[in-house]
Amino acid sequence: MRMVDIIHKKRDGFELTHEEIQFFIQGYVKEKIPDYQVSALMMAIFFKEMSETELSFLVYEMVKSGDVIDLTAIQGIKVDKHSTGGVGDKTSLIVGPLVASAGIPVAKMSGRGLGHTGGTIDKLESIDGFKTELSETEFIKQVNDVKIAIAGQTGHLVPADKMLYALRDVTATVESIPLIASSIMSKKLASGADAIVLDVKVGSGAFMKTMDEAKRLAEAMVTIGESLNRKTVAVISSMNQPLGHEIGNANEVREAIQTLKGEGPEDLQELCLTIASHMVVLGGIVDQVDVAYQLLLSKLKDGSAYNRFKTFIERQGGNLKSLETKQAKYHIDVRVKQKGYLHRVDTEGIGMAAMLLGAGRKEKGDPIDHSVGITMHKKLGDELNQDDIIFTIHANRDQVSEVIDRLNQSYDVQENSFEKEGIVYRVITK
Amino acid sequence: MRMVDIIHKKRDGFELTHEEIQFFIQGYVKEKIPDYQVSALMMAIFFKEMSETELSFLVYEMVKSGDVIDLTAIQGIKVDKHSTGGVGDKTSLIVGPLVASAGIPVAKMSGRGLGHTGGTIDKLESIDGFKTELSETEFIKQVNDVKIAIAGQTGHLVPADKMLYALRDVTATVESIPLIASSIMSKKLASGADAIVLDVKVGSGAFMKTMDEAKRLAEAMVTIGESLNRKTVAVISSMNQPLGHEIGNANEVREAIQTLKGEGPEDLQELCLTIASHMVVLGGIVDQVDVAYQLLLSKLKDGSAYNRFKTFIERQGGNLKSLETKQAKYHIDVRVKQKGYLHRVDTEGIGMAAMLLGAGRKEKGDPIDHSVGITMHKKLGDELNQDDIIFTIHANRDQVSEVIDRLNQSYDVQENSFEKEGIVYRVITK
Repeated sequence: MRMVDIIHKKRDGFELTHEEIQFFIQGYVKEKIPDYQVSALMMAIFFKEMSETELSFLVYEMVKSGDVIDLTAIQGIKVDKHSTGGVGDKTSLIVGPLVASAGIPVAKMSGRGLGHTGGTIDKLESIDGFKTELSETEFIKQVNDVKIAIAGQTGHLVPADKMLYALRDVTATVESIPLIASSIMSKKLASGADAIVLDVKVGSGAFMKTMDEAKRLAEAMVTIGESLNRKTVAVISSMNQPLGHEIGNANEVREAIQTLKGEGPEDLQELCLTIASHMVVLGGIVDQVDVAYQLLLSKLKDGSAYNRFKTFIERQGGNLKSLETKQAKYHIDVRVKQKGYLHRVDTEGIGMAAMLLGAGRKEKGDPIDHSVGITMHKKLGDELNQDDIIFTIHANRDQVSEVIDRLNQSYDVQENSFEKEGIVYRVITK
Repeated sequence: MRMVDIIHKKRDGFELTHEEIQFFIQGYVKEKIPDYQVSALMMAIFFKEMSETELSFLVYEMVKSGDVIDLTAIQGIKVDKHSTGGVGDKTSLIVGPLVASAGIPVAKMSGRGLGHTGGTIDKLESIDGFKTELSETEFIKQVNDVKIAIAGQTGHLVPADKMLYALRDVTATVESIPLIASSIMSKKLASGADAIVLDVKVGSGAFMKTMDEAKRLAEAMVTIGESLNRKTVAVISSMNQPLGHEIGNANEVREAIQTLKGEGPEDLQELCLTIASHMVVLGGIVDQVDVAYQLLLSKLKDGSAYNRFKTFIERQGGNLKSLETKQAKYHIDVRVKQKGYLHRVDTEGIGMAAMLLGAGRKEKGDPIDHSVGITMHKKLGDELNQDDIIFTIHANRDQVSEVIDRLNQSYDVQENSFEKEGIVYRVITK
C-alpha cells in the first residue's frame, strides 16, 4: 500500500477502505508517513469530504492511536457532554451537577484550551483549593460516591488528533466538517464515555456560522458515535449572542451557581435543561425527554442541583466562599448610544474584548486572570433606551479604551421590534 | 505574509497576487516554507486551478529561482519545441534539422527522462561518438555555424520546478493542468528560447487522455508564453497509436532519417511538417504557415533536411554508419489472430512493452539498451487479415512471452471499416 495512492483515491472522490485509513493513521503516528503527504490528504478531504463509513473507520483508528480511559469501574451509564465552544459558555458547570443530582454518573475530563475565556478547568480554578489533578482511583471513587468529578485530561489520549490538528492549523484545513467531527469524537470516545450529548453552537460567536454547517457537523458526529456503538445526540443551539450575561471565569462560575439555584438567565437555563434532559434519557433513568426536563427543573428549584455542585466542589477541595473575593478592581459601564432594539451582536468581537482583558489565553501556557470579564446586560430583541448600560467591563487596569471601542462596535440597533428566537434550534439523533 | 493565509486564499478560490506567489516560490526554494504547506497548496491548486495572471506570475518566479541560459550570442530568433511526450515520439530528431535547413537556429537542450524509451539525448547516443556535453561556447558556435545543436541540459535551471515536481509526484498532484503548464513553460523559458512551439499529445499513449484536457493545457501554456513575451503556438496531435512505426532508440533514429529523406511514415511526416511550419513562421522566415509547409516539404524531398542532419551529427562527433550495427539479436513477429479493422490501440501498453525490453528506464540512472524496441506495422483503420504481422519485437533475449502477451492485449479489432483520422487535431494560438 502506498500513501500517494490513498491521496489520489480521495482526491478523485472515491471512498477509502478501513485498511487504507489504518495504514494512514498508523503510519503517521509512527512517523513513517511524512507531513507533506498527510497535508495533501487533508486538503483532498477538505474538498471531497468523507462518507459515514470512512468517518467511523477514521475515528476508530484515531482512538486506537493512544490510550483509552477505562471507566468500567464506575457504576451506571457514563454520559459525556461536549460543546463546540462559544462565548460565555458555562454549561458544563451547570449540566454536570444537574444530571449527577438525577443519579447519572458524570466522569468528565476537561481541557484548558485557547480562546476568549478559559476552559471548564480554568473556570473551576477560580475557586481556591479546587484540585483538578485526580488519580484514576480518586476520580473513579469520587464518581461512584457523589456521581460527579471533573478533572484535567491525563494520559496519552488520541496522539493522532494532536498531530493532525497541529498540521491542519498551518495548512488551512481546519474548517473541514469531517475533520472537525473526527477530532471531537475521537477525544470523546477515548475518554471512555458510553453515551454522548453534543452541544453544537451556530452563529456569530461559534465556529459554525450557518445552520447548514452546524447541521452537517452534528449529523457527522452523531453518525460516528452511533456507528461506534455510543448513543449520541446533538443539540444545535444559538451562539448569536453570549450565553447568559457573564463572560469571564469567576463571574461565569457565579452565574452557573445562580442557574443551579434556579435563578439563572432564561437562555442559559433552557439550554442546560435541554442538554441535561438528553443526558438523563441516554443514561437510562427516564424514557422521555420532556419527563426528564421536568425532573431536572425540579432539581434546580428544590436545591438538589446546587447541593450536588457544593458537594462536588468540596470533595475536590474547593472553597466556594473564596469565589466572592475574585472581583476585578475596576467596573466600567458601557452605555447605549442609540435608542431602538438590539438587533445583531458580534459575539466573537465581545469574546475578543474579554480576551484583551486577560480572561482567556492566546497561546498555550499564557496565564489567565480569573477575576476579569464582561457582563452583557441586554439580550437580542431587548428594547434599548439611550444611556442604558449594555455592558459592564470588569478589569484590573483602568485603561480599557480599546475594549470599550470593541464593545461599541459589537452590536447593531434597529428601530423596529422583532420576535426573540429560542436558544435551542433543533436536536439531531440517528 | 503567512503561507497558511496563501493556502487558505487559494483553497477558497481567490486569485493570488504576484507578491504572494513570489513569497511562496522564494520561500520554498530557500527552504523557509516546509513541504507540508506546499503540498497543501498544490492540492488546493489541483481543485481551484489558477488564473492566467497567476500562472504567468508563477512561471516568472519559477524561472527566476535558478539560472537562465543566455542565447543572445546566437543570431536570429531562437525557436524551441517541446513535446508533452508519447510512444514512438522522434519528432525532435526530424524537426530540428528540418527547420535548421530552412535557416532557423535550433539551440536545443534536452533531458533524458523516464519512460517507454529514452529522451532525445538517449536516442542520439545510439550513434557512436555523438557528444551530448558541449561547453556554452561550443554550443553557441555550432548553432551559428550549422544552425543546430542538441545538448544535454546543464546549469542549475528552475530548481523550483525540480522541488515542486518531486513533491507533486508523492502527493497525487501531478495531474493538474496549471501545474503541468507551469512546469513545462518554466523550463522552456529558462532555456533561453525566443519563441516556442508545443506538441501537445492526446490519447491512449499520452498524459492527456481527452481533447478537453489537452486543449486546456495547450491554452494555459500559450497564455503563459505570450504573457511573458514569447510567441507561443501549440499543436494538438493524436497519441491514440504510436507515432510512425518504430519504438525504441536506434530504430527510432533510423525512422527519423527515413523521414528526413522524405520517405517516412505519413503520420510522422505530417506532424513534423506542421510543427516545423509553425517554427519557421515564428522564426520570421516566412509569413504563412502553408507557405512554410511547402518550403519544408521541398527540404525533405531535395535532400537538404537529411544533409543538415548529417552535418549536425558529424559536428557533434557522431558516426552515422555505426547506427547500422545497433541491431537486436532476436526479431520476433507477433501476428493478428482475428480478421477485421484495427479499431483501438492501447498505446501506453505498447510503450510499457518496449520498456520491458530495456528501451526505456523506470528509475533515474537505469541503463538503456539502444538496440531493442518494437515495430508496429499496422495503423488504426488498417484492414487486418489473420496471420498478418502486426508487431515485430526486437529483443536481446529470447524469452519475451510477457512482451508478446502485453502486445496481444494492446489492440482491438472490429468488423466494420471506418475513416482514418488525421494526426493533427488543432492548433492553438493566442
